[in-house]
Amino acid sequence: MTGVKDTGAITEPAGFTAAGVFTGVKRMGPDLGLVVSDRPAVVAGRFTSHRMPAAPVSYTREVVARGRAQAIVANSGSANAATGRAGLEDAREMGRAAARALGIEPELVAVASTGVVGSRLPMDRILPGIERAARERSRQGGAMAAKAILTTDSHPKEVVRRVSVRGRTLTWGGMAKGSGMIHPNLATMLCFVTTDAGLHPEVLDAMLGRAVADTLNLVTVDGDQSTNDMVLALANGAQGVHLAPGDPELEVVEAALVEVLQELAYGLVEDGEGATRVLRVRVRGAASVEDARRAARTIAGSQLVKAAVYGGDPNWGRVYVALGNAGVPVDPLAVTIRVGDVVLMEAGEVVAYNEAEARFAMMGTEVRFAVDMGAGPGSAEALGCDLTEAYVVINSKYRT
Amino acid sequence: MTGVKDTGAITEPAGFTAAGVFTGVKRMGPDLGLVVSDRPAVVAGRFTSHRMPAAPVSYTREVVARGRAQAIVANSGSANAATGRAGLEDAREMGRAAARALGIEPELVAVASTGVVGSRLPMDRILPGIERAARERSRQGGAMAAKAILTTDSHPKEVVRRVSVRGRTLTWGGMAKGSGMIHPNLATMLCFVTTDAGLHPEVLDAMLGRAVADTLNLVTVDGDQSTNDMVLALANGAQGVHLAPGDPELEVVEAALVEVLQELAYGLVEDGEGATRVLRVRVRGAASVEDARRAARTIAGSQLVKAAVYGGDPNWGRVYVALGNAGVPVDPLAVTIRVGDVVLMEAGEVVAYNEAEARFAMMGTEVRFAVDMGAGPGSAEALGCDLTEAYVVINSKYRT
Repeated sequence: MTGVKDTGAITEPAGFTAAGVFTGVKRMGPDLGLVVSDRPAVVAGRFTSHRMPAAPVSYTREVVARGRAQAIVANSGSANAATGRAGLEDAREMGRAAARALGIEPELVAVASTGVVGSRLPMDRILPGIERAARERSRQGGAMAAKAILTTDSHPKEVVRRVSVRGRTLTWGGMAKGSGMIHPNLATMLCFVTTDAGLHPEVLDAMLGRAVADTLNLVTVDGDQSTNDMVLALANGAQGVHLAPGDPELEVVEAALVEVLQELAYGLVEDGEGATRVLRVRVRGAASVEDARRAARTIAGSQLVKAAVYGGDPNWGRVYVALGNAGVPVDPLAVTIRVGDVVLMEAGEVVAYNEAEARFAMMGTEVRFAVDMGAGPGSAEALGCDLTEAYVVINSKYRT
Repeated sequence: MTGVKDTGAITEPAGFTAAGVFTGVKRMGPDLGLVVSDRPAVVAGRFTSHRMPAAPVSYTREVVARGRAQAIVANSGSANAATGRAGLEDAREMGRAAARALGIEPELVAVASTGVVGSRLPMDRILPGIERAARERSRQGGAMAAKAILTTDSHPKEVVRRVSVRGRTLTWGGMAKGSGMIHPNLATMLCFVTTDAGLHPEVLDAMLGRAVADTLNLVTVDGDQSTNDMVLALANGAQGVHLAPGDPELEVVEAALVEVLQELAYGLVEDGEGATRVLRVRVRGAASVEDARRAARTIAGSQLVKAAVYGGDPNWGRVYVALGNAGVPVDPLAVTIRVGDVVLMEAGEVVAYNEAEARFAMMGTEVRFAVDMGAGPGSAEALGCDLTEAYVVINSKYRT
């Protein structure tokens, strides 16, 4: 993915080191990742809205609420979800172990997990793994850390973006996992980004909130949100450029963050289970941005739309039906629907479109539906993937 | 289905006749149904909450709002949805044609459609069909009417229930279609019930509302609501038993209606596209009935739960995750989950259950999950079906 060297993305910003080690929680491959800043960093986060979040989510929310962090420790293979009070203690112990090994305050360690729901973490493997990761971490360790958070993803997702501010180069590095499932688990989305820009906690938080709303929150693979979803951003200021609230340069820094999350989001749906095509749904003309987001997400998540995309069928009727199920006001006589550049319905009237052209627009690895609701200035874009037999097979026939 | 003779269910109550005829909107089989009462009947209805309902839904809402109807005319093959103002005129013309042929007021005719979205009704076929149906209708015509509303359903769904009130037998007859899809259409649920009981409009409306909330509203096949969903109930009082508001006998009459809709609902999921298993999700211990319904529906509609049911995998983690995504408050330490009679999680703790027993409970044609939220008196049951490769094939590979 863009700008990523074989040493990984997350350690591209100055002052960050990382490692990925094998502890044996998974059967093979690195399964414990550590990301460390050389100084306390400003932290911001966004978390699953699941009503029974996993222990590391509850724990890390508190870290983020304090506004500062210096390390992220994350394991794959076991989600530490549905594990009750004991699970919360395990998450805390992961943080404490990382703090001891790094010689920092435990309050500065964020914790994340992904993998099987409903079993305790094997702490006898995790704790020595944390010590090893702390010893082995380096500027070259980003790629291994990105691999360590994968479950059934087919490959790591990593992105780097640089911007120039006051003669210095500021860097964002991001890594994410998602879309893979292991029994009895489901897709967990973990995403970590780092930057060597200096940002106020409120600025980073607001920036991350906006960027997530436009990117990772508009991604759907199968409509089930995980107990473990988490996005964390660390800004350590290692370039010596500190941007106060209101600084006009914040705009380019935020634009770069949005690009990083956009590309990671795309990577998630592209690697969605069983997926053969990315589905891009652009909604404009909605009464508000919120309405546009809701409509776009509903269409991209419709089981019937996803099946039609798999079949390469320009089935605009399913898009129309999903639009009306999004729970937002819509005037049928104002709706225009396109696939690619082919207009299928215009101002509520079915168009005598060229069937071959419409089918051709459904044939690529990316299918684009554009819906104009004709009501207002709201627009948004959601990303999804097609629904295939392979998805059903993966999620019904195998137990790993 | 229960109590149904080969003459059909909808004409079992006294005073009702029906017909199903072939007009050529579909390629084969009857595609236009007519149900007629020998006198004006009290009518109640429930309709899709889709934001862009099809023309017959808009039209029939007005009929139902007046509280009285004497006939239902319904076609399959073309949904008269996304057809704008012209479609509304077509729906009105269907009603007028039926009224002319029957010699009744047009205001007393309800209209319904199901089938392809986005093309005008072929009125040159529909209108002669209505005349023929009006001529051919009989007490024996219920079965053909039930066939006439099918799209890709594999068989009609019909149910009859009788109750004894003040020495007279009162009958409910019901028919429904659903779960089949034809390009570019989606599952439309149509359900019509008749009774020879005499009921006040407010009583029938309230009774139907409660019965639908507990049955048809808790059914999910693939999460997309149609533009054409409609439930209508006609009560013509032909048995001479009139039950005023507050009459204690209303309870048994309502119980019989609930049974009719329950059995029709079961028929819909059993015949869901590609389905091999019915999924029954019982939620109790919710803070309210509304919470219980929402939780049960979310679990029964989860793509991951449905895939696990197909695979026969007692994957309680997915049930747990769906529960937390239902948007209702839930205390993880109070949750108990069972499959069949096997407890998988108890009071938030994973139980060392017998894997073979749990797998056995997943093996039948009906899989039952029971969730206790441990919070209050709310309970509800939702019905769904499994997600199979056949579902994906039907909805992606064929265009009919």
